[in-house]
Parts: sequence; structure tokens; C-alpha cells
Amino acid sequence: MLDKYKKLRNKINAYNFALSTISFDAETIAPKDAFEYRSKMVNTLVGEVMAITKSDEYYQLVRDLSKVELDEYMTREIALELKKLDKNKNVPKELLLEYSMLSQKCSRAWEEAKEARDYNLFKDALHNLIKMIKRIKGIQDPNTLAYDQLLDDNEEGYNMRLYDEFFQKVKDEIIPLIKEVTTTPSIDFIPDKKIQKDFVYYIIDAIHFDLNKGLLSESLHPFTSHTHSKDVRLTVRYDDTFESILSALHELGHAMYNQQISSELDDTFLKYGVSPGIHESQSRFYENIIGRSKGFWKNHYSKLQEMFPEMNQYSLDEFYASLNRVENTLIRVQADELTYPVHILIRYEIEKYIFSDEFDINQLHHKWNDLYEEYLGIRPKNDAEGILQDIHWSWGYFGYFPTYALGSAIAAQIYYTSTMDIEQAIQDNDIVAINEYLKEHIHQYGSLKTPEQIIQGISGEPFNADYYVKYLKEKYSRR
Amino acid sequence: MLDKYKKLRNKINAYNFALSTISFDAETIAPKDAFEYRSKMVNTLVGEVMAITKSDEYYQLVRDLSKVELDEYMTREIALELKKLDKNKNVPKELLLEYSMLSQKCSRAWEEAKEARDYNLFKDALHNLIKMIKRIKGIQDPNTLAYDQLLDDNEEGYNMRLYDEFFQKVKDEIIPLIKEVTTTPSIDFIPDKKIQKDFVYYIIDAIHFDLNKGLLSESLHPFTSHTHSKDVRLTVRYDDTFESILSALHELGHAMYNQQISSELDDTFLKYGVSPGIHESQSRFYENIIGRSKGFWKNHYSKLQEMFPEMNQYSLDEFYASLNRVENTLIRVQADELTYPVHILIRYEIEKYIFSDEFDINQLHHKWNDLYEEYLGIRPKNDAEGILQDIHWSWGYFGYFPTYALGSAIAAQIYYTSTMDIEQAIQDNDIVAINEYLKEHIHQYGSLKTPEQIIQGISGEPFNADYYVKYLKEKYSRR
Repeated sequence: MLDKYKKLRNKINAYNFALSTISFDAETIAPKDAFEYRSKMVNTLVGEVMAITKSDEYYQLVRDLSKVELDEYMTREIALELKKLDKNKNVPKELLLEYSMLSQKCSRAWEEAKEARDYNLFKDALHNLIKMIKRIKGIQDPNTLAYDQLLDDNEEGYNMRLYDEFFQKVKDEIIPLIKEVTTTPSIDFIPDKKIQKDFVYYIIDAIHFDLNKGLLSESLHPFTSHTHSKDVRLTVRYDDTFESILSALHELGHAMYNQQISSELDDTFLKYGVSPGIHESQSRFYENIIGRSKGFWKNHYSKLQEMFPEMNQYSLDEFYASLNRVENTLIRVQADELTYPVHILIRYEIEKYIFSDEFDINQLHHKWNDLYEEYLGIRPKNDAEGILQDIHWSWGYFGYFPTYALGSAIAAQIYYTSTMDIEQAIQDNDIVAINEYLKEHIHQYGSLKTPEQIIQGISGEPFNADYYVKYLKEKYSRR
Repeated sequence: MLDKYKKLRNKINAYNFALSTISFDAETIAPKDAFEYRSKMVNTLVGEVMAITKSDEYYQLVRDLSKVELDEYMTREIALELKKLDKNKNVPKELLLEYSMLSQKCSRAWEEAKEARDYNLFKDALHNLIKMIKRIKGIQDPNTLAYDQLLDDNEEGYNMRLYDEFFQKVKDEIIPLIKEVTTTPSIDFIPDKKIQKDFVYYIIDAIHFDLNKGLLSESLHPFTSHTHSKDVRLTVRYDDTFESILSALHELGHAMYNQQISSELDDTFLKYGVSPGIHESQSRFYENIIGRSKGFWKNHYSKLQEMFPEMNQYSLDEFYASLNRVENTLIRVQADELTYPVHILIRYEIEKYIFSDEFDINQLHHKWNDLYEEYLGIRPKNDAEGILQDIHWSWGYFGYFPTYALGSAIAAQIYYTSTMDIEQAIQDNDIVAINEYLKEHIHQYGSLKTPEQIIQGISGEPFNADYYVKYLKEKYSRR
């Protein structure tokens, strides 16, 4: 029975390996006009995966396995798999395939709309996708609100009640703090893109990410993907600022997590990080706790000055201040650490609206602009810097953004509660020790432990958003 | 019946799309340590393709279709497919899978051996692969010599009798010519790699290759791959010479062919070029007839000088002479037009030896070195510049090299016999007209017409190697 399961699992892994490689190719280099044919091929491959996972044979096999005694790894894997199958057991394969096609169409429409800066070109495709998601959620669990289901899909155990509480703290504690913080002048210098790339390779080396088991590429939106622990890929984008450095550090957090998952899990379904929230805690940890710290730049600023001689006119303190500059801006991925959760709060409120009875597809972009004005005092001039800035919704990722704020909060909790002196290790440029520590407590497990177990294991207590507020207050009141 | 076939064909196309994307990724960017896991996934996907193509159901379907009336396209496709299935009908799936695994191991061994410059590290893996090929050929057709089968597999209708005749001309006419030609001093200048890349993009533009339907990348060995007419990829390598330019023009020949195959064939099995020989005739045409002509460089040399100002010290004539410099060298891919067929002759003689009764795996590298000494008067100092220089045999590509020489000869025949004034079009920088002409007579058809029909169609007569000898004599006696 287990052999049969492993054989099917191997096939599913092979399809997913193919789909992941195709998708990475599409996001980084594939020619524009290849879209249509690729879509057709991808749909065929997705159909092949579903022919297995939606078969009675597979469902029966997983159910049978859930009733026998298995080792710790297999027990967890089968439990996760059964949960997924149970959720979809009443959803016809055709609907899931249609969903997959709608989301491909929607991200295509998003691209075109973004280029034209016009939400109206995106609206219909988005509406179709939302309707399909509501339909599927209605079948999966008619007794639970669709958005609560989506939140739980993304981060097990989370729902509107918990997130409302979390985001209330953002409103009560962080928004007032933003108003207190004075901004410092930013560094006015356009770094050469080719040298930026060389510097990102320097940072990769400084973080000790292994390029024999991974690579760096470029894409419009930075992301990290992996098919197994020996092939982990991060991308960045080079623009006219130093954004590439912080976004590389962010992706390196995801990438270190993936690369340090035990290679013994490579053949299993546990080979992925356990949840978006835990994943984002790692990217935020490397980006903010390490990458926006003075200790880190004490060790690396001279190299940056060497590679960009124009930076010699700025002291380490000035550079550090610019890295931690607080400013109300329109674009989430360029946001500073302090205003970041407000960007997420806005997306959370819009998602709640989408899944409420008041929802009107024609109002989304206005609502977006209104919320930016309300919370950050600024208003997008067009949809490209408004609702069209993120690709996520076009993929059908609803309930996903909140995990970004959650991740920042978990990173802060790790910072305060871990048994390791993280500040000291950063000062000593002992990133290897930090990697090892995170590997031991988080990374190695892949999806073996639940998010709660992970948080409990590294900090000795359950998730507590107060550390996040404390972290931001301490860091930004110091100034 | 046709619907059922088209459904299976779509699946096979989807698997091949995935395999091709994975392979392109592997050749260009994939991290070193990803090899083992990727191999496993590729084998699983290859197994899935075979589960279709080796099924009784598929065989029966193709056989049935071969007996009914179909349109011109489907008739040709079914005939080609049936021929392939008939050939393999007695070969067990397990053997084909083992062959696929052996060739993956062999190319891995080749990489290591090449780095160590030691044939002995490659020998065993190569031997296993050769034994497997002999075994499969023995099953496929016990009454035909294995090497004759391989030659026909690669270029329909060709065998040792025809190639012996062809290569005799190389020996009788071209080797003596090489000895007559005096070499001109080469250009001694190391072009910056980043500017080389910019210049290759300039050449891509000059050839009118459409980057919305294709891309340029880098790999250790330049190659072209395509999954359909809207995704055609060429790679080059940037070293300390201008080799990147000629190899880009070579790959652009393959790439233009692929890109100009009628997009109506994208969903069929006719979407590939008809044979390696015809394919190579196109790459040689763009590389030699266009790319090594004075007319082409009259239009583009000033741009080259602009991008590489050091070239201002060399006149167009000097640059042209250096492009057409004749020199007995060890490396095939860097060989000039005149010595090139001798490199192929050597490989042909070694392949004949491999499939003869005298074959001894321990002698291959010595034999290689002896033949270079005999025909070109130079002897490799190590295996990396000897037998390990080409990856092809490690892939199991035997009988393939001869098509390279055939391609050069077909290009020469097209040059002399076509109804278009090619020389004039090159002078006028009207590459679009040449592209159109080749599209009309060759490219658009994909595999719809046979190689003989293609040659007959464009030149009004069957293949005739004398044009090749004439071309080389005219070009190199002029000097």
C-alpha cells in the first residue's frame, strides 16, 4: 500500500517539478508570444496531476493509509494530504481545471492592465476568478464563510477573528507611531545595474547561500521558488535604487529556509516550508532583523563603498538611516518596515470587502485609493501605483497577504525570544551561526511540524503580536 | 478515432514541452547539485511518455489511422509515427528507459572527464551506452548493420555506401585544397564579453529573428531548441575571440528555420525541422553563406567597429580575411569552413570503427589523435582537445555527425541552384527577402516534406555533393 502511494507521489512530484520549471522560465525569460501555447501545455499537465489526485483510487489509498500506523513523517504527510483531499472531495475536477485556466487568464489581463495603468482592463477577469473562488469555497464548506476558509487555507488556524485582533493592534499602535517618526533625507544616487548585480552576488556570499544548490535570476517581481533542497532559486529586479539589496535579502530568507530543509524530505510532500506565515517570518528576518541592522552594515558597508565609490560621501550612519527611512509611500514592495503592515492592513480590508455582501467589482480601485488616503494620507494617481501593483490576486491568492504581516510579527518574536544572541552574531558577522540556529529550530523540518509547533519550539510560547509592536516601537523610538 | 489520437498527441506534446523546458534550464542555468533529483524526475516523465507511446492502444490507433484517408498533413504525420513505432515495436519499454538513464549518466561522466581532460573517466559510461545501442539496434532490425540503421535514423535514406562516397570527395578534393591555401594573419584582440553580447543582439536584429517569439541565452555549448514556432531559443558562449558572432549566426540559421515553421503545425508532430541534415543546411547557410560573406560585413562592419573601437585599426578586408582564415586546428566548433568537413570525416571514421568488429573502447582516444595527425597534421595534447571536445556521443548521438557535413553541402547546393540572387540580397542587406525565400521553400513545411523533396523543391535536382566542392574551391582559390 505504501509502495503504491510512493509511486504515485513520485509521479505527482515529477509533474510539479515540470510545472515549477516551466513557471520559473515563464517568470524570468520566456518570450512574450509563447504564452498561449504554454498555457495549453500547462493545463494539460495540471490535468494529468488531477487525474491522479482526483481519482477514487488515490483518495481511497490516502484514507487507508491514514488508518494504519506509520512513521512520524508519513503520518504527518498523509494527514496533510487527506485534509486537502477531503476539502476538495465534492469539487469536480472540471471546476478546478476551469479555476486554473481563469487564473492564468487573469494574470495575463493583469499584465496588460498594469501596462495600461487601467483597472478596467483587469476587472472582468478578476471578477470571473472571484466568482469561481466563491463557488468552490461554497462547495468545499458551505458552513464556513469563504474568507475564513481562505485565511485558514493559507495559514492553518487563522480566521477573521484572529486577524481582526492583530490588525487592530496595527491600527492602534503602529499608525500613531508612524505619525511621530520623522523621516531622514534619503541617499540621492542611481547605482549602476550591472554593479548592483555583482553586489547582490556579494550579499549572497555574505549570507552563505550555496550557489551549487541554487541560483540568482531576474524578474519583474522578485520571488523565490524551489523544487527540492538542492535547487532553490531567487530572483531580484534592478532599478534605479538600492532596492535590489533589500529585496535580495528578503528572498534570501525564503531561499535559506528552502535550502536548509532536510534533503531527506526531497522525495516527500513535506519538502516545502510549512506555511506562508512561517516562510515570511524567515524572509522578514533576513531582510529586517539582519539586513536593516547597523551590525550587518558595519561588516559590509566598506564593500558597498568600494563597489559604488560615489557612496564614499555618505557615512555608515547616513546609509543606515536611509535603509530605515520611514515614509508613507504607495508601493508595498518598496515600503519601509514601519509602514509595511499598513499596506497589508489595506489589502486585508479590501479582501474582507470582496467576500462580503457589499462587494462591487466596480468599486475596488476606488476603495483602494480611499484606504491609502485614510491610513497613509496619500492617494495613487493611477491604478498601476494603486490596485494593480500586486500580481497576487490575479493568481487567485486571497487570504495570502495577511500572512505577510504575520511573518513580520513572527520574525520580531523570534528576535526577542530565541535563546541565541542574534544581535551579537550579526555584529560578529557570524551569519553561519544564525543559519544553523534557524535550521535547527525551523528550516530542517519542512512541513513536518505545524506553524504553532515551530513558533512554540523556537520561542517557548505561542504567537504573540505584542513583540512586533515592541520591536517597531523600540527601533523607531530610538531615533 | 482522430479525436482520440489528437488527445494523446496533446499529452505527448505537453510532456515534451516540459522535458524540453527542463533540459534548456539544465543546459543554461540549473545549479550543479540539482542533477540527481532532476534525473529522477526526468526519468519519471520519460516513463509517462512511454506509457502512452509504448501502449498497445496507441500502436493500434496509429495503425488504424494509417489505413484510412486523411488530409496531407495527418497522412504524413501518421506515416512518420508508424515508422517510429514499428521500429521500436520489439524493444521493451524497460530497455528504452535504461537507455535514457545510461545516456544521462554518460553525459554526466563526459562533463567530469572533460574537466579532468581524461578519457578514462568517460570510457566505461560510453562503453555501456554503446553496448545498449548495439543491443537495441539488434532488436530493431537484425538484418541491417547497426551503423547503417543509425545513419538512416538521423537522415532518412542515408547509409555507409552514400556517406563513403561523400567523404571520399572530401578526401580527394578538399584535403588537397587545404594544403594549397595559405593562411592570413588573424586579428589579435580580446573583445569584451558584455559588448560581445550586445553585438550578438545587434546581429539577431540584423537577421530579423523575432525576440517576441524567442530568446538568446548562454551555455557551455551553443545550441538551439524550440517547443513551437513562438518559442525558439538559441544560446551562445562568450570567450576571448569573436567566435560568439559566427556561432550566433550558425544558431540563428537553426532558429530562423524553427521560427518560420508554419504555426499551424504547432499542435502536431510536424512542428520540427524535417532532418538534421536539412537543419544543418540552414545553420551553415546563415553562418557561412551569409555570415562569412563580404557583402554582409560591408553592411555591418562599421557597427562592429563602433562597438569595439580597437577594430578601427583593421580594414574590412582584413576582418573579412580573418573570418575566412584557414587553419588546421583541433576543435571542430572553432574550425573554418574549409577544414570543417575533415573534422566530420574523422568522427565518421571513428563511428564506423565503433560499430565494426575491431572495436576496442580502449583505443578510441588514440584513434582520434592518430586521425587528426593523419588528416590535419596536428595531434591533441590531451583528451579535452581530443575526443572529449564534443558532448554528442555521451547523449547517444551516433550517426549524427555526418549530417553536419551533409548540411554544409546542401547549403552550397542551395547557394548555386536557387532561383534567388542570394549574393545580391546579402549586398543589399535584404535579409528579410532571404528569410522569406527560405521560409517559402523550406522552413514553413516543418516535417511535412521529406528531405529529398525539400532539396528537389529548392534546387530543382537531387542532392549533389559536387556543389560543395565547387563552392569551397571557388571561394578559397579566389584568394
